[in-house]
Amino acid sequence: MVEVVGTAPTSAMFITKFVYRRSWKSNTNNIKLYFKDSIYLLKIMLTEDQKKEITEQQNQKNITKRVISPELEKILYKAIPVLDHGFVRVVDYMGDDSSIVQAARVSYGKGTKKISTDSGLIKYLMRHRHSTPFEMCEIKYHVKLPIFIARQWIRHRTANVNEYSARYSILDKEFYLPTKQNLAAQSTNNRQGRGELINGKQADDILQILKKDAEQTYTNYELMLNEKYDGSIIDEHNKGLARELARMNLTLNTYTQWYWKTDLLNLLNFLSLRADNHAQYEIRAYANVMTESLKKWVPITFEAFMDYRIGGMELSAKGKDVIQKMLRGQPFDFEKSKLSKREWNELMESFGFKEHIK
Amino acid sequence: MVEVVGTAPTSAMFITKFVYRRSWKSNTNNIKLYFKDSIYLLKIMLTEDQKKEITEQQNQKNITKRVISPELEKILYKAIPVLDHGFVRVVDYMGDDSSIVQAARVSYGKGTKKISTDSGLIKYLMRHRHSTPFEMCEIKYHVKLPIFIARQWIRHRTANVNEYSARYSILDKEFYLPTKQNLAAQSTNNRQGRGELINGKQADDILQILKKDAEQTYTNYELMLNEKYDGSIIDEHNKGLARELARMNLTLNTYTQWYWKTDLLNLLNFLSLRADNHAQYEIRAYANVMTESLKKWVPITFEAFMDYRIGGMELSAKGKDVIQKMLRGQPFDFEKSKLSKREWNELMESFGFKEHIK
Amino acid sequence: MVEVVGTAPTSAMFITKFVYRRSWKSNTNNIKLYFKDSIYLLKIMLTEDQKKEITEQQNQKNITKRVISPELEKILYKAIPVLDHGFVRVVDYMGDDSSIVQAARVSYGKGTKKISTDSGLIKYLMRHRHSTPFEMCEIKYHVKLPIFIARQWIRHRTANVNEYSARYSILDKEFYLPTKQNLAAQSTNNRQGRGELINGKQADDILQILKKDAEQTYTNYELMLNEKYDGSIIDEHNKGLARELARMNLTLNTYTQWYWKTDLLNLLNFLSLRADNHAQYEIRAYANVMTESLKKWVPITFEAFMDYRIGGMELSAKGKDVIQKMLRGQPFDFEKSKLSKREWNELMESFGFKEHIK
Amino acid sequence: MVEVVGTAPTSAMFITKFVYRRSWKSNTNNIKLYFKDSIYLLKIMLTEDQKKEITEQQNQKNITKRVISPELEKILYKAIPVLDHGFVRVVDYMGDDSSIVQAARVSYGKGTKKISTDSGLIKYLMRHRHSTPFEMCEIKYHVKLPIFIARQWIRHRTANVNEYSARYSILDKEFYLPTKQNLAAQSTNNRQGRGELINGKQADDILQILKKDAEQTYTNYELMLNEKYDGSIIDEHNKGLARELARMNLTLNTYTQWYWKTDLLNLLNFLSLRADNHAQYEIRAYANVMTESLKKWVPITFEAFMDYRIGGMELSAKGKDVIQKMLRGQPFDFEKSKLSKREWNELMESFGFKEHIK
Repeated sequence: MVEVVGTAPTSAMFITKFVYRRSWKSNTNNIKLYFKDSIYLLKIMLTEDQKKEITEQQNQKNITKRVISPELEKILYKAIPVLDHGFVRVVDYMGDDSSIVQAARVSYGKGTKKISTDSGLIKYLMRHRHSTPFEMCEIKYHVKLPIFIARQWIRHRTANVNEYSARYSILDKEFYLPTKQNLAAQSTNNRQGRGELINGKQADDILQILKKDAEQTYTNYELMLNEKYDGSIIDEHNKGLARELARMNLTLNTYTQWYWKTDLLNLLNFLSLRADNHAQYEIRAYANVMTESLKKWVPITFEAFMDYRIGGMELSAKGKDVIQKMLRGQPFDFEKSKLSKREWNELMESFGFKEHIK
Repeated sequence: MVEVVGTAPTSAMFITKFVYRRSWKSNTNNIKLYFKDSIYLLKIMLTEDQKKEITEQQNQKNITKRVISPELEKILYKAIPVLDHGFVRVVDYMGDDSSIVQAARVSYGKGTKKISTDSGLIKYLMRHRHSTPFEMCEIKYHVKLPIFIARQWIRHRTANVNEYSARYSILDKEFYLPTKQNLAAQSTNNRQGRGELINGKQADDILQILKKDAEQTYTNYELMLNEKYDGSIIDEHNKGLARELARMNLTLNTYTQWYWKTDLLNLLNFLSLRADNHAQYEIRAYANVMTESLKKWVPITFEAFMDYRIGGMELSAKGKDVIQKMLRGQPFDFEKSKLSKREWNELMESFGFKEHIK
Repeated sequence: MVEVVGTAPTSAMFITKFVYRRSWKSNTNNIKLYFKDSIYLLKIMLTEDQKKEITEQQNQKNITKRVISPELEKILYKAIPVLDHGFVRVVDYMGDDSSIVQAARVSYGKGTKKISTDSGLIKYLMRHRHSTPFEMCEIKYHVKLPIFIARQWIRHRTANVNEYSARYSILDKEFYLPTKQNLAAQSTNNRQGRGELINGKQADDILQILKKDAEQTYTNYELMLNEKYDGSIIDEHNKGLARELARMNLTLNTYTQWYWKTDLLNLLNFLSLRADNHAQYEIRAYANVMTESLKKWVPITFEAFMDYRIGGMELSAKGKDVIQKMLRGQPFDFEKSKLSKREWNELMESFGFKEHIK
Repeated sequence: MVEVVGTAPTSAMFITKFVYRRSWKSNTNNIKLYFKDSIYLLKIMLTEDQKKEITEQQNQKNITKRVISPELEKILYKAIPVLDHGFVRVVDYMGDDSSIVQAARVSYGKGTKKISTDSGLIKYLMRHRHSTPFEMCEIKYHVKLPIFIARQWIRHRTANVNEYSARYSILDKEFYLPTKQNLAAQSTNNRQGRGELINGKQADDILQILKKDAEQTYTNYELMLNEKYDGSIIDEHNKGLARELARMNLTLNTYTQWYWKTDLLNLLNFLSLRADNHAQYEIRAYANVMTESLKKWVPITFEAFMDYRIGGMELSAKGKDVIQKMLRGQPFDFEKSKLSKREWNELMESFGFKEHIK
């Protein structure tokens, strides 16, 4: 059995998953953060060399005058598993909660006077969207992820990225295959979402197709390269097709990897979009693990983020008008509200009412 | 008397000003947009040459296959006065409401099928913060503004800017002097806001100081340059100090000017921050004029923006919990809400209740 | 036979291709721009509806006060073929050469005084990398391209993008298959480049694999979706797998499409990297077509770009030292130059000398 | 006498200044880096509290698993004097040379195998403008600088900034006054540069004006605020003008301060523009100090930067053609070169020839 590097059996890590609801979606039970054991320890294919390299990094003990984030230090460099072959590793960071305070005050010393003061300031900044002080912290991840997810992720432009180059190197023989719990049919009322689960033989058939096609296209990738994943030549008499061409035969569930660095503000933007339940499950799995690292890194900011962004909601001018009328016991109805049916229903759901318009 | 270029007496332009309230601020009368005559026609110091150049631009009649925005075309190139010597001119634009729809659909043709469909889609995009289609429209302004306002404005980084160079040229002899209606004392409860008006002799003294210091430092600027604003040399026997040095003697209310270009999404972000009543009056004056140009350019987007951004509000998780309890007739109070006093008061004000905690 | 929309037989468009060499690469014949007929008219699969939509756009005649670029207007909306199923269409633009001059001068009127003056200023700006005035023009393309090329392209972050969503819609049944002239072996001396051509049976086999795998994975994509490309249901008794999942079975040569908008400065950056002969052939094919549109749009800027960027080169401090010694007839040699072998060879090649160090 | 905080008399810090020449400018002596003692220890007005805060930061000893930059740690938090009242302090950083290598390789462990290998890779990346790996390091400065310099600096948009707010607080009573060695006349051949020094009485007069106007406008600033710099109220019977208004009376040489954070790539871009001898002296003074911090932080990158960027040059297609003809002993002349006079002269100067065209 291959263990997650750096995780002793007794400290086996169970990554929790947030389930929350946000703006414009109903939430009959108010904001809740269900912490579930959801991502079990999958086997990450790390070579002995990779494991050794990670361990060496974890054993570094350097003395610095910079601020540190003690909880984040504990998981630094660890490969935390996501999906079937992916992982997230925090590989570097700069600053902590006090850095936000320090920048907001443009102070000469360390920001922290008292925790309570700092916490109040951070909440104030978050509430009023005074966003620049949050840009003063930076974090860097090493991520392994399927290509079709990488294509969603890269749309966040205010980050720095170095991706493993398939022009230069041969990609690993690893593809994402969903678990049966994630094999959902197309949603019937949401053009870009999932509906009910697919079960039985159809599920088996689909998984079979995905596996077979990925393996076949990868085998043909090696064949065209005239070189196997392990570097061995297939036919001494043939040339190999250029790597930049051969890669086009791979399927979109092939894993790639990258270094991804961003400031705290843009990390929060990423998480509020990608940890949202409208996001595709596969990217949410990454966002959830990264939300955990956020909590360890900047606990005060994390709390403000959960209160004002994740658990909060937005009201339109028209929506607010309806709520005000309800609060004052004034008459209100759908027609006078000028809301669309969809907006009306979303609003009612948000506040836990069942009066839907069809 | 110098007239605003392109404005015949009969078409005298009265710029209206939005007064609105948004998130976290009380608004007892719901959302309202008071349109007031607020910015009267001030004399803009345009030379005959400048007027002629503007008129020439306005007389252009080019045939294009591109989409046009008919209402925006009408004010294209016009110098709309702001503050005492400033102006805003729309000098170019790209796209209209249909371009947003077109990009959202990645369609082959012009986006517009039916206005109602397009409008629904634009509202949907705005509501769900699907922001990238709004980046597909672009606008360019020529703005004349006081330096201390330019310093706030430039913090919006996702724009393209070319500023008049005071290393290269001599700045105009124009400084911003507030009207008496805008001469406010420091707010006592908001460290970065204005309180009540300053009147009488103190007001006169302040305006006198601002005027005198601006004129004196400008006169000394000319003296050091050994050159007057009109290009005449002061003392043939002297050299002039380098312009890049002499400029440091000018006060921050000196006017500068720039070309400023941005996409529609970032214009909306700019306006939602700078047309807000927390923004300094002087930058709001510009934002209000630009909001007018937004309305002419992309009327459907304008409407969605007013409903979902300007007139809307954000609720935190804790704030939403209080509102839900109120709606259901359940007991609620300040202590259990875990809101800060300030948040509680802001929430109550937002919904028009007077139960403030002190 | 399906023709390129808007291209009458007599006006058949032969896109030329630049072949040039730039910094750090040898170029024994100095800078040359070979204009070759290189991209013949391929069949673009456009439906009747798409053709009609494009024609409608091309027939627009709107009157505008904005500047126009007459040559670019001529090809506006046209789908110019690239690779086997891709295309590039210019769908909107803002500004022309005069806009750069106007912004550099922060002028009240149209930039152009005399063409010669404008041209001098634009060259000066290009030479001295005064880049902000070039940001004042904007262009928008509609592009159809293989996914593995889209993944390179998207790394240019300072652009606005709306991509066809495979979460929302079903992708077209189109994949890129290289022509035999582009079927190259892995380079032996450049880890990320192509070497000699692959011929004969091996070439046939490779093309056979690429075709077969793309078709099979696409057929299985339809099977999992339970829906054919044309919208017909495959098995009434089955649910279709969510589109956001099914897409992962597609190969990286499947075509996608997007709206891509950028300012002129960033377009030049894109072209100088992607029209370079170090770039992968497939993205260069797009960059070449876009360079043609650059020439039509802003001819003065195009010329300066070819002189200072594309045809120019960079010298390091050490490299310049060697050239100076050569020019003065002073002794110089590899060892004293402190250049690496690779740098020395690149330098010698650049200036057309054959004294290579091995 | 006020010492620089943290600088014991025996370790008194003399900041050296780079004088170099780059592309398109003459350099008869080839590339040279003159290291001069140029910025003497000026008195920085730090309060006892500020000094204490800085000392506390410097005494931090935290243990981290992150990589550290030993030389940069030594000067961390130190206020290094620039101009008469300004300073630069490195307050945080992330990564070192090995981080660039690590990202370029997307490796699991620490980048460094052997210094020689890393150095080769970093040089290769710099030479070929493979820029993304340099984005993987981050640095944060606390800077005190005159407002007119801050206005140049802020044009670098890809940085994170928090500036001391003059809406919220009262600015320090500190203004920049040039030394006599920097009091230059307007250049006669460069519209945005300095020419010969201004001496004697005119120099005295200018300095007198700058000092007097800055002091007078500051005194009036206090008067309008009805509050002195030290917080004492001037007239108990008056209200103070809002800080956001009063500030407009200050001159552009007033000092402000900010936290400024950027990645290494954008720091290099900043330095190559602002440490260049075309840059205004006052911003160059900051860039020079920051170049020193670059050298301590990432010594390998520093070396590559000096060779390929600072000491290097760019050749246009036409300029390269001339050089090639010269190298081959072929005839060449100004007219056939199609270079402008200015370009020709710049080219000749660059290679140390005196054949100027007038």
